[in-house]
This record gives sequence, structure tokens and C-alpha cells, in this order.
Amino acid sequence: MTLHKTQEPVITSVTDLPTSEAKWITLRKVSYIDQTGTPRTWEVAARKTRASSAGIDAVAMGNVLLHPSRPASTILVIQYRPPLDAYTVEWPAGLVDEGETPEQAAVREFREETGYDCEVVSVSPVQAADPGLSSANMKLVMVKVRLGEGDELPEQRLEDGEHIQRVVVPLSELYERLVEYSKRERTVVAAKLFHFAAGMEFARTQGPEYRL
Amino acid sequence: MTLHKTQEPVITSVTDLPTSEAKWITLRKVSYIDQTGTPRTWEVAARKTRASSAGIDAVAMGNVLLHPSRPASTILVIQYRPPLDAYTVEWPAGLVDEGETPEQAAVREFREETGYDCEVVSVSPVQAADPGLSSANMKLVMVKVRLGEGDELPEQRLEDGEHIQRVVVPLSELYERLVEYSKRERTVVAAKLFHFAAGMEFARTQGPEYRL
Repeated sequence: MTLHKTQEPVITSVTDLPTSEAKWITLRKVSYIDQTGTPRTWEVAARKTRASSAGIDAVAMGNVLLHPSRPASTILVIQYRPPLDAYTVEWPAGLVDEGETPEQAAVREFREETGYDCEVVSVSPVQAADPGLSSANMKLVMVKVRLGEGDELPEQRLEDGEHIQRVVVPLSELYERLVEYSKRERTVVAAKLFHFAAGMEFARTQGPEYRL
Repeated sequence: MTLHKTQEPVITSVTDLPTSEAKWITLRKVSYIDQTGTPRTWEVAARKTRASSAGIDAVAMGNVLLHPSRPASTILVIQYRPPLDAYTVEWPAGLVDEGETPEQAAVREFREETGYDCEVVSVSPVQAADPGLSSANMKLVMVKVRLGEGDELPEQRLEDGEHIQRVVVPLSELYERLVEYSKRERTVVAAKLFHFAAGMEFARTQGPEYRL
């Protein structure tokens, strides 16, 4: 499927969504007793889609594309995200389906969004996506793809309504490229990807002494 | 104020929270026209507290503690987070108040949570906290603290209800320490911090060729 981008996405209305009508996400009120014995409450946003089998909402795929004659690169996805009314730059990611392991979800989602079959290199511990706001959690799955000399970008296998642009960036330029993307109109880099790249840049420029 | 941790926090109830009763966060339904001209909707969680002056919700403080005779370190905060019913390991962070710049919010929050006065080294572009789920955004503010030879951990200036434990970790051990924390019962590392550390580790072990 080729993306025929005929127009810029445009928001036509934003309305309060009653919790009882929400299908994908919800609001909850958590009442708890804190460390000092004081009763308190906290407002929480949650996904309603967490598969009970894996117990985690999502995976993101940190990825390395290895080509015989080009520098090691990573593939990023750019898509319009209605929550921000902007195009986000992210690593491929997706929700874990019922019955799937995080590894299986990673391979499936990576294939859907990039077209590539990948090999799982490592799976992170569970991480809290945005712990002050939501119960959402995720794992970072590092994957690699071995390319042949003449390999072209493969076809994506997107679901209806998904419009995802792919860009391939040499890993040595990742941080700079994300800073550049951030300057584009209506474009925001996702925090997890930005933090990974900032950590790489920090190690490259400050390590191993980190004296700043 | 010293933290007298007399008991483990315990959740006493979790109830659906009607959007109309929520004070801090909300659900919204965004209707939009996508790239192909098709009308679609998206469910969004949002903070209700964003200061219009800065236009961003929060700052997180990547930090370096420089001590005359010890390795460069970073201070992490561990606190009970009701959304996850777990202790999270994070960099100090907080919401930007009305009228504050991100730099001012960083210095204020860093002082409240750690007790240290810090110097701002750099401020990142805006990042999307969890772009499939929420409109929440943030900036990563890198800060440093110069310590004297005999400096002790200073007093925190926490708000009522905040119970935040501080740990100081050498930057060269950050990634391993986060993996260790992730194995502890009822403990989760925040994704942004984990990704930064994973990026450092990736650069240290795979760079500059990144051939995996």
C-alpha cells in the first residue's frame, strides 16, 4: 500500500469524553493510604486494552539496520498523532495483543510498520510510560535487520487508517537529526526516542568521565 | 523534613472517575480528517494543568553531581506512584507553573525534590510524553551540581504528601543499577530515564560503529 498524502490532517472538533463512553482509555480514581498512614486519592489515566497474558501495554522497537556497505542505521516512523495535533517521530511501537509475548508483538508490529522482518536482540524490563499520569507501561525491544547490498525499503502492512512514513537515519547522526526534526513545523519527537538518543550523545561527548 | 516511612502504601479502592469530576486530568474525543480525507476520531488523555505561558506540561532534570574526589554521579528519586501501585525510579521532574520558564521550573523542582541548587546546562526541544495516549509533553533539562569535598545530602523541601527517597548513582553504573532496580519487588523504572541510560549503554558498548 502506498501512502497518497493528499492533505494535511485537520482537527474538526475536541469534546470532553465521558468515561462511560470511552472505548480505548479510561479515567480512574485511586484511593490509597500513603507511607504515613494518611488516606489520599490520585487521578489516573489507563489503557483499557492491556492483554492479561503479557501484563504490559506496549513495546517499542529500538532497531539497528545493518547494511554491507552503509553505516549502521535505525528506522524511525513519522505519523500524525491526534493527541498532539502534530507529526511525531518515534521508533516503531505498538500494543501487545492477547496471547502474544513482547517478543512476538515486537516482530509483528515491526513488520507492519516498517515491512522488515527483524531479529530480537534484547528485551528490557518493564518501564513506566508516564508514571505521574497513567498506568501505561512498556518494554523496549532491541531488534536488528540484516540487509543485502541492493535491498530497497519493503512494503508496509499497515492497518486501515494508519499512515506511517519511514525514515532511515545513521545511528551516528540520530541525536542531531532528532533535534532538526524538532525544529520542523507541527513535528514533535517522542520522549522515549529522544531520551535514548540524548543518552547516546551524552556518552559520546561526556563519557567515560561524565564531568560535563 | 525527614521521611518517617511507617508503612507500605496500600490501595483501598479503584473506581471509574467521571470526566466531569476529574480535577487534574481529563479525557477528550478528537475528531479529525486524516491524510486521505477520511473523518476519524481519537480518544486522548490530557493534563488540565498546562501553564499557558510555557505551553509545556513538565520538565525532567537529567543531572550530574560533580564531586572533587568521587566519580560523576546522578541523583534519582524513588517514590510511590499510585497509577502503577509501585515505587518508580525517575529523574527529578515536575509540572511547570504558570509564569515559569522551563529553566525556572527545573531549578525549583530540583531544589524541592533533591535539596540541591543546580545550574542549567541545556534544555531540550519539546518532547511528546506518550503520543498514542496523551497530549502530555515535556522538556529534558540537563543540570549540574558542584559539590564540596565534605557535602552531605541537603534537606528536601517537599510539599505535603510527597515522600521522595533520593539515591546517588555513579553515571558509569547507571544502566546496571536501573536493571537491578527493575528486579526489585514493586519497583518500576520510568521509561524516559531507562531510555537515556540504555542509550548511554548502547553508545558505550556498540559505538562508534553500532554493528551490534
